[in-house]
Amino acid sequence: MFGIIGSGSWATALAKILTDSGQHINWWIRNVETIGQIQTRRHNPHYLTSVYFNSSLLSLENDLRKVIAASDIVVIAVPSAFVGETLAGLDTSCFENKKIISAIKGIIPGENVLLNAYLLKLFGVFLEDYFVVLGPCHAEEVAAEKLSYLTFSGTDVTMAHEIASNFKTDYINTVINHDILGVQYAAVLKNIYALGAGIAHGLEYGDNFLSVYIANSADEMAGFLRKVGIEHIVVGEHNEEDPVTHRKAPNYAASVYLGDLLVTCYSLYSRNRTFGNMIGKGYSVRSAQLELNMVAEGYNAAKCIYDLNKEIMAEMPIAETVYRILWENVKPAEGFKQIEEVLV
Amino acid sequence: MFGIIGSGSWATALAKILTDSGQHINWWIRNVETIGQIQTRRHNPHYLTSVYFNSSLLSLENDLRKVIAASDIVVIAVPSAFVGETLAGLDTSCFENKKIISAIKGIIPGENVLLNAYLLKLFGVFLEDYFVVLGPCHAEEVAAEKLSYLTFSGTDVTMAHEIASNFKTDYINTVINHDILGVQYAAVLKNIYALGAGIAHGLEYGDNFLSVYIANSADEMAGFLRKVGIEHIVVGEHNEEDPVTHRKAPNYAASVYLGDLLVTCYSLYSRNRTFGNMIGKGYSVRSAQLELNMVAEGYNAAKCIYDLNKEIMAEMPIAETVYRILWENVKPAEGFKQIEEVLV
Repeated sequence: MFGIIGSGSWATALAKILTDSGQHINWWIRNVETIGQIQTRRHNPHYLTSVYFNSSLLSLENDLRKVIAASDIVVIAVPSAFVGETLAGLDTSCFENKKIISAIKGIIPGENVLLNAYLLKLFGVFLEDYFVVLGPCHAEEVAAEKLSYLTFSGTDVTMAHEIASNFKTDYINTVINHDILGVQYAAVLKNIYALGAGIAHGLEYGDNFLSVYIANSADEMAGFLRKVGIEHIVVGEHNEEDPVTHRKAPNYAASVYLGDLLVTCYSLYSRNRTFGNMIGKGYSVRSAQLELNMVAEGYNAAKCIYDLNKEIMAEMPIAETVYRILWENVKPAEGFKQIEEVLV
Repeated sequence: MFGIIGSGSWATALAKILTDSGQHINWWIRNVETIGQIQTRRHNPHYLTSVYFNSSLLSLENDLRKVIAASDIVVIAVPSAFVGETLAGLDTSCFENKKIISAIKGIIPGENVLLNAYLLKLFGVFLEDYFVVLGPCHAEEVAAEKLSYLTFSGTDVTMAHEIASNFKTDYINTVINHDILGVQYAAVLKNIYALGAGIAHGLEYGDNFLSVYIANSADEMAGFLRKVGIEHIVVGEHNEEDPVTHRKAPNYAASVYLGDLLVTCYSLYSRNRTFGNMIGKGYSVRSAQLELNMVAEGYNAAKCIYDLNKEIMAEMPIAETVYRILWENVKPAEGFKQIEEVLV
């Protein structure tokens, strides 16, 4: 049985998908009032309010231990910034014989690691029990039942298939992938490039430039992922043929890489794009944060990847320049003059 | 000295770029009235009307032989449908010792060949004297002097560099490429995929799907180009390192491939997208043509590539389905159900 941890828009979308595919879910929601509202009104009053649930398929609970204990497969779908406090108080025994699905986009702040490394360190969860669900998938389009593709990644490809089959509905197609680290890094990188696209927009570059910028970002991303992949192959866990493409190397044009980059960079409503646009217009990072009352994911991602790339050593002139604009006071116009020089 | 053949929006944009970079141009314009208007008013009254020229750099002429005779480098910038009638009456001697730059996007109708093959057959122009200029480059953004990237492709890379240097301005960056056939096919293929994106939009697919569709289109395009490239390598003209990427194979994420695909697919104003949208909404090809009073490039391109791929034999489920929708009465919704199955 599935458990879902979190009640934001992405968690709510995943709850809709699983229940629409007929699964009973154990749903952990911190706020007791929200639980009461979903029970009585059959919808989440805070996110995707147009989505109504079949109550007979929901077990709502604010005791996290109980939710995990009752579930074989636990979907972690809280924002990455809240992972630490959400899981605090659990211990290794909670995760014994559980499969974990990460629906988290981003690196755990402070720790600067992917969720799999965090779960291994704190709770002894092994990589073979760990899966990732990613899309190019705005939760709003799930609510509207617009056809979307979810990619399930895991080193245990058979189990990934089995898990994915529970998410298949009229409006969800599923793709299997085994590049478990690569897909997670891609989900982090896309936010940096989308933030950069916002900066470019703020600097009044046009559509011609944007398409060149995004194409080169896709290439830069693939270069990083290829290096991460090589590391991974060296440790011997990853050297199989891709089950979808029958290629050894992942297909970086697949939806979970290029598709997700495109939907994030071209979305006018993304927080990364809005944040970047303000930076491009001349706001400081601090005043953009105050004005928007949020931190765009790409902001922390830029620093995480910058630090990480000291080891990986991929060529990342775009991501590094976005980092320097955000973290080292390089003027956006000057930074983009440097980016202009490397685009092909 | 440069000659430009044609006076549409793309020809006008190229005339602006060359004169802004200080080049004197011989400009062939069929219509004598248009010539008079450009001479007196300093702008083309029909296209990019906001662009004003330095008249001292223009030699306007409606005698094509004179324009070619006076020029070392001739830019052919008429729509591909008019190439035949425009060049009719010329002979092999006209093109002796000339470099030709194709600014044509598409395959010559009726002949079903790229411009280089057409010029070789009719006028004995060899591939080493033939170059292609392509971008992700809306002419309107050139008029507005928004930074854009033009890629110059040729088997003679040194000459391609020299040609490109004449197009470098404040708002134009240039890229060199030697995949002379690949870039031309990419410019044809992008129109098919953009028309398909329009159909998807007409069928009310959302942004999540569109990003998956475009990512997979990029991959399908690269697969076709790789096969064209392999053919090309076999005949021994092409087996050098790419001067920009230092890779043997072209970098299909570069602006001339992926960038141009993105700007075409995501542009809401492209004729391919508008045409496709009507097909998706249920219009027949004929009624969409009548209603819009034009034929989208992707319509003929779909048939050209379908026929060509009988030899190349690349896997092209997306382009072939778009072909069947346009040319074999497959219902758009049924065609896209088939496309859905192959996306990853």
